[in-house]
Amino acid sequence: MPDKAIRISRAGSGQPAQRPVMLAIAGDSAAGKTTLTRGLVQALGADQATAICVDDYHRFDREERKGLPFTPLHPDCNYMSIMEQHLQLLATGQPILKPVYDHATGQLTRPQLVEPCRYVIVEGLLPLHSKLARACFDVTVFLDPPEEIRREWKVRRDTAKRGYSPEQVQAEIERREAESIAHIVPQRAHADIVVRFAPIATRQDPPDTPLSAELLLRPTIHHPDLSGVLGDDDQHALHLKLVRDEMGRPVDALHVHGYVSRTESEAAQQTIWDGLGVDAPLPTTLGLLDDGRSGPLAITQLLLLCNLLAVG
Amino acid sequence: MPDKAIRISRAGSGQPAQRPVMLAIAGDSAAGKTTLTRGLVQALGADQATAICVDDYHRFDREERKGLPFTPLHPDCNYMSIMEQHLQLLATGQPILKPVYDHATGQLTRPQLVEPCRYVIVEGLLPLHSKLARACFDVTVFLDPPEEIRREWKVRRDTAKRGYSPEQVQAEIERREAESIAHIVPQRAHADIVVRFAPIATRQDPPDTPLSAELLLRPTIHHPDLSGVLGDDDQHALHLKLVRDEMGRPVDALHVHGYVSRTESEAAQQTIWDGLGVDAPLPTTLGLLDDGRSGPLAITQLLLLCNLLAVG
Repeated sequence: MPDKAIRISRAGSGQPAQRPVMLAIAGDSAAGKTTLTRGLVQALGADQATAICVDDYHRFDREERKGLPFTPLHPDCNYMSIMEQHLQLLATGQPILKPVYDHATGQLTRPQLVEPCRYVIVEGLLPLHSKLARACFDVTVFLDPPEEIRREWKVRRDTAKRGYSPEQVQAEIERREAESIAHIVPQRAHADIVVRFAPIATRQDPPDTPLSAELLLRPTIHHPDLSGVLGDDDQHALHLKLVRDEMGRPVDALHVHGYVSRTESEAAQQTIWDGLGVDAPLPTTLGLLDDGRSGPLAITQLLLLCNLLAVG
Repeated sequence: MPDKAIRISRAGSGQPAQRPVMLAIAGDSAAGKTTLTRGLVQALGADQATAICVDDYHRFDREERKGLPFTPLHPDCNYMSIMEQHLQLLATGQPILKPVYDHATGQLTRPQLVEPCRYVIVEGLLPLHSKLARACFDVTVFLDPPEEIRREWKVRRDTAKRGYSPEQVQAEIERREAESIAHIVPQRAHADIVVRFAPIATRQDPPDTPLSAELLLRPTIHHPDLSGVLGDDDQHALHLKLVRDEMGRPVDALHVHGYVSRTESEAAQQTIWDGLGVDAPLPTTLGLLDDGRSGPLAITQLLLLCNLLAVG
């Protein structure tokens, strides 16, 4: 159920702006895109945020794909130019008639009218694939869990919700691996924020400890001022380090620790929330997982809310 | 089967132009839109002409419409703003992912990619409904058969091809009448060419005589020079009269007589065809009906080909 939503007027404007704020959340299958998106939509309110998944732009249904030499991760398996066109339309405030791929049946079905709200969140495998698509976004995120964790998540989801056996999921992961490296991973270099949820290898935390998050904050957008909430060592909820990314480019690495106490995590969440200046309590839907709650996820979502509200 | 197609390079251009030539064919259900369109596509060649039907932009499927206070003729029953958006995209040479309404099942199904060829023919109930939509076309046609003839055609088609009983079709025609008058008929005033196929009331022609055609040629576009083919009275295949339309505006009324001999009709067709300067024989698919052939239909199609080729 949606929590009390953020309702902020943009400064100096009584009417919603014509151009929505566009957020991309890219990443491989089962990287956590839907979980991250859900909390954002609930915090913003369904009347303020439109979420779409660009995996609906599949060119072929499941039956047709059987005879094809590529997987749904390949751009040729998707109507990429129509995806770009629809992103441009949304970014300029116009409605689209979006195709719909039914994951349960593997069929392409009746399209849906999507009218952009103030915030449009676009998640999927390839939203950052092309320059034209990337140009449509104000903020771009790439979800980058360690491969073994992503596989675990994918097996869990696809067996529970999409009717596959664990062996089928494993085989599909193998079959997709080369295309993941060729087409999904390169989007990481174009994201303003790269998010990695993972346990910390050097620690012996109990198994129910929430995963920690590392957020690479690239200097391609303006990031929120975190000085009020950063700890000066890794015993606190948040810690910032200046590092180089995998391509040697300077970047801030924000570490959000899953092993701190719930009290400490919630204090950090409250501080970030207060900084937004929103006249409402901290939304209780932040950090919600299918089977629990994660402080690092809540903090990641709060930081993305800061980024979105900073745009408009 | 497609006949030998027209293949004309636009003067001074080795490449197809980026912007296609756009033709609208509007009219009520069973007014003859598909028959007229089919001959044009076959004459131009399927690689040169894209035909779409904008009745695919239905907002509701047949089941959903049962509870609604309007019929598919009502603009509110259609995604009109998406139709306008798609017409603008096609007119500027861009592809669309077009919705698909399945007349056999009454369901909205998987959308189709449409990439505009050199000529785009858009037929349907409401392609000329709005100013934005009309602005997308180079040539606009409204099919305007006498109501009793259209009813006969609709009963024949919907019982043969869409699985309805004659009583069901008659009831549906009654149910739609007010919306036809409110939303379909007003498009006639915006058409460059209004086409009416009808028998000539003052004559006692045998029942297998092809219907004659009256074409109102409005001075809103440049029409072909017919001086080489016009007769000076109504004993010949074509006859031109200066008249006023139903709103009192001056217009040329071209009468194409169905009662002239086949030889005379074909001579007129050949003369118009020769005027196009196309290095191919007269296409044999012009004038084809479901159950025969019509000289006046062939001549109407030839004149529309003249209009299209005059644009580019």
